[in-house]
Amino acid sequence: MKLVPLKLVTIVAETVLESYLKDDLKRLGAKGYTLTRCEGQGDRGVRVSDVEGGNIKLETIVSPEVAEAILLHLSGRYFKHYAVIAYLENVEVVRGDKYV
Amino acid sequence: MKLVPLKLVTIVAETVLESYLKDDLKRLGAKGYTLTRCEGQGDRGVRVSDVEGGNIKLETIVSPEVAEAILLHLSGRYFKHYAVIAYLENVEVVRGDKYV
Amino acid sequence: MKLVPLKLVTIVAETVLESYLKDDLKRLGAKGYTLTRCEGQGDRGVRVSDVEGGNIKLETIVSPEVAEAILLHLSGRYFKHYAVIAYLENVEVVRGDKYV
Repeated sequence: MKLVPLKLVTIVAETVLESYLKDDLKRLGAKGYTLTRCEGQGDRGVRVSDVEGGNIKLETIVSPEVAEAILLHLSGRYFKHYAVIAYLENVEVVRGDKYV
Repeated sequence: MKLVPLKLVTIVAETVLESYLKDDLKRLGAKGYTLTRCEGQGDRGVRVSDVEGGNIKLETIVSPEVAEAILLHLSGRYFKHYAVIAYLENVEVVRGDKYV
Repeated sequence: MKLVPLKLVTIVAETVLESYLKDDLKRLGAKGYTLTRCEGQGDRGVRVSDVEGGNIKLETIVSPEVAEAILLHLSGRYFKHYAVIAYLENVEVVRGDKYV
């Protein structure tokens, strides 16, 4: 079976950023996403979910180039002022053409 | 500490497929799964969660052979007619005998 | 863009263990975590979520050393008596200093 190597980008952020991040992903070339409601605690020492309605995890499978564009954008736009984390993983997918 | 390399198979699908997919995983050799309720938007341009009760993410850790069997089955059975995505990741587990 | 390779530790456990596991992660050196409510079925043949309020998935990004410490602790403390699974993945993060 033919599998295609791609990048899984995971973003965990405050729920207030949901619509901004969805728009960012679309504009930067992601063809879809999965959103999961979650809770989190990070290095700011505040459990964000207690005060602002929780966190979201956005996952999207993209090409390496789109993955880098997403991370660059997040880094410049959100990292200074918001509790956002983002990371990449290598994945292998069926139907690679759906994602690029 | 001894870690065992295995495959993490992630399936994101419409909730209507939940019982079918759980049965598939069991029949194809998965020893367990984790199910998370989520939302998603993919290349069909429809936010499935708005019209059909959301999406599910099923995750299971299996041998490479079972992972391939799962992807082959999903590909033949669901990909043409349903909004299903599936991907593999490499994981390292403790207690590898639980999964195979 | 500079990315830093780290380990993503994922723990899936019964919800009754939530506060213990959060304390464990903090004490063992994790700087944060993401918690997602989920359901699961494993090799004990019981759908835990039906009888005990569901499962949790805890995810934390840490150094390889902290990852090993977490797995060792889980293995000794919980694996014998609780339905707990844990696994490692390789991730690449922006702002690696947040996690170590």
